[in-house]
Amino acid sequence: MTKKIVVLPGDGIGPEIVAEAVKILEAFRQEGLDVSLEYGLIGGAAYDETGTPLPDETLQMSKQADAILLGAVGGYKWESLDISVRPEKGLLGIRSELNLFANLRPAILYPQLAEASTLKADVVAGLDLMIVRELTGGIYFGQPRGIRTLENGEKQGFNTLVYRETEINRIGKVAFDIASKRQGRVCSVDKANVLESTELWRETMTTLSESYPDIELSHMYVDNAAMQLVRAPKQFDVMVTTNMFGDILSDCASMLTGSIGMLPSASLDENSKGMYEPIHGSAPDIAGQNIANPLATILSAAMMLRYTLDEAAMADRIEKAVSKVLDDGLRTADIYSAGMTKVSTSEMGDAVLAAL
Amino acid sequence: MTKKIVVLPGDGIGPEIVAEAVKILEAFRQEGLDVSLEYGLIGGAAYDETGTPLPDETLQMSKQADAILLGAVGGYKWESLDISVRPEKGLLGIRSELNLFANLRPAILYPQLAEASTLKADVVAGLDLMIVRELTGGIYFGQPRGIRTLENGEKQGFNTLVYRETEINRIGKVAFDIASKRQGRVCSVDKANVLESTELWRETMTTLSESYPDIELSHMYVDNAAMQLVRAPKQFDVMVTTNMFGDILSDCASMLTGSIGMLPSASLDENSKGMYEPIHGSAPDIAGQNIANPLATILSAAMMLRYTLDEAAMADRIEKAVSKVLDDGLRTADIYSAGMTKVSTSEMGDAVLAAL
Ligand SMILES: CC(C)[C@H](C(=O)O)[C@@H](O)C(=O)O
Ligand SMILES: CC(C)[C@H](C(=O)O)[C@@H](O)C(=O)O
Repeated sequence: MTKKIVVLPGDGIGPEIVAEAVKILEAFRQEGLDVSLEYGLIGGAAYDETGTPLPDETLQMSKQADAILLGAVGGYKWESLDISVRPEKGLLGIRSELNLFANLRPAILYPQLAEASTLKADVVAGLDLMIVRELTGGIYFGQPRGIRTLENGEKQGFNTLVYRETEINRIGKVAFDIASKRQGRVCSVDKANVLESTELWRETMTTLSESYPDIELSHMYVDNAAMQLVRAPKQFDVMVTTNMFGDILSDCASMLTGSIGMLPSASLDENSKGMYEPIHGSAPDIAGQNIANPLATILSAAMMLRYTLDEAAMADRIEKAVSKVLDDGLRTADIYSAGMTKVSTSEMGDAVLAAL
Repeated sequence: MTKKIVVLPGDGIGPEIVAEAVKILEAFRQEGLDVSLEYGLIGGAAYDETGTPLPDETLQMSKQADAILLGAVGGYKWESLDISVRPEKGLLGIRSELNLFANLRPAILYPQLAEASTLKADVVAGLDLMIVRELTGGIYFGQPRGIRTLENGEKQGFNTLVYRETEINRIGKVAFDIASKRQGRVCSVDKANVLESTELWRETMTTLSESYPDIELSHMYVDNAAMQLVRAPKQFDVMVTTNMFGDILSDCASMLTGSIGMLPSASLDENSKGMYEPIHGSAPDIAGQNIANPLATILSAAMMLRYTLDEAAMADRIEKAVSKVLDDGLRTADIYSAGMTKVSTSEMGDAVLAAL
């Protein structure tokens, strides 16, 4: 049966980078990959056209899809909007409505780009860590939330961090399962010495680990984790953490590699239906210039082929093609260094296509 | 009038490093510094002796003190205790009871230790940033909080992130005032695209900045801030942020310098009464071995002389003495590198004393 892919280009550089990933998917379709592509609006682009960052039409088509390819959302343009209609709300809405609770964020150093890291070579050479971030709970979605006016007339803003055992268990399982195909080590990150919600997180992970005798579970406070990522990131195999801590730590980890323009991500539900998107943002400052790096989005399409479409061979071909264009010295501006060949967004996409 | 200093050695390496800072204060006392020193129990040490991490006696003497010198609290030994009696609770209790809302955490690269950073030299050379962390509000103290059992029998943990305008204003003022004596730039870090509490944070900082026409205020999302600290930390002058984000970012920033054993901190109330402590933790793994680095605690005593005791000249003398012992090649194990002279905790303290 034809698998349905919904493409949500979003804002900023989103449309440009998504176009390059679509080129690749279209090429596989020519070869017989049985997928249909349908486009939807999300984020600021959706708000501008429909007054909401997540139109019902987008939500419905996404619910019916097998996989979603997302560019990026947000930008200065919408920063003064009320929080309830910001572009980001579209992304948060789709994560929540589709129950995409497991966010996989690899932080890998590409050997061809080792120079781009701000860290010393020996600290990051060979870095390959996987951050598993809980994506549909925690303080991102907890109720009550809002801004109220107190009796004395001043405003007070409030949010609620909340996790229940079932939520912690299911993200824990994802982390343990991934670790079992890697080095077998999970580091759970919390702030159990201060926050009761993450005290429960720690206890639940500890209990869960009894069902995974071959996995080594450790715990780390989030402040220490941020330090250890800078001090010795290679100590980690898989990290699992809350929505908010995962947001911060995964961005930190991806920047360590110097390859943030290269890193894909997957957000999965319980049936490995998923949304795939680059880790980087919408970069409004360079939008429309055909200079953004499309490789993270192309590699996100590879993750989609592997995890949702069961086409590991095609995923492999993409990843090898990306490696080849890097070996050939092709670089978009963000990863350019002296002696390499600077290419545009579309030239990079074409080069990967040719190398498939 | 005699100024009262309360000394709270705490846990792990706390007693050893505090002893070295006290040596220096005692030397100044011989020279005429009019202070009295009184000792109190806090953290795990207090729990073991009295059953609570913040005995009333400690709290009362701290309330009457002009300044507090703290070592560190916490350790594996107490990790299985209930969160309400953990060593950390002693620290949180004293911060809150004494209204020490402004936590100043410098991240400075000592040129003598430049090699110790995991970052490339050009990225961190000359790094000198000040993180101003809100310390008595936010999710650390918000109510309601706890772990409850839901109807279906599973447990749920919850915490509340809450900020009101007056809290944001007073920490904002501290940041702006500090920036006015530095490069005049404040970066306020929030997650205003997701959390209403920090949307209010951003609005309040923006309004406040109108009273500081000479200060340049920028805003950054916390995930981006974690990336930018790794990518280009020298872009920052003063960062101001919430209790939780400040905990994470300041640890990350201090590790960038490679000098985390060197960094002091101050936690101040509205009248510059303050608690002074090293940024690093209690390091239970090396406790009792006379190998910990006492310099962060010695430099915390210098901050105390400067901010609370109005003895800038003495503070200068400590800072110059620390610089001199580093120039002389003295290094504790944590900052040791080939060709230097390895010294113990007490040898380092003695060397600073001799160099005063
Ligand atoms: C855009 C924003 C809402 C989002 C998040 O905070 O989750 C982004 O930072 C991310 O990490 O995907
Ligand atoms: C020990 C702990 C409660 C404390 C905190 O989280 O504030 C520590 O990490 C710090 O930064 O001073």
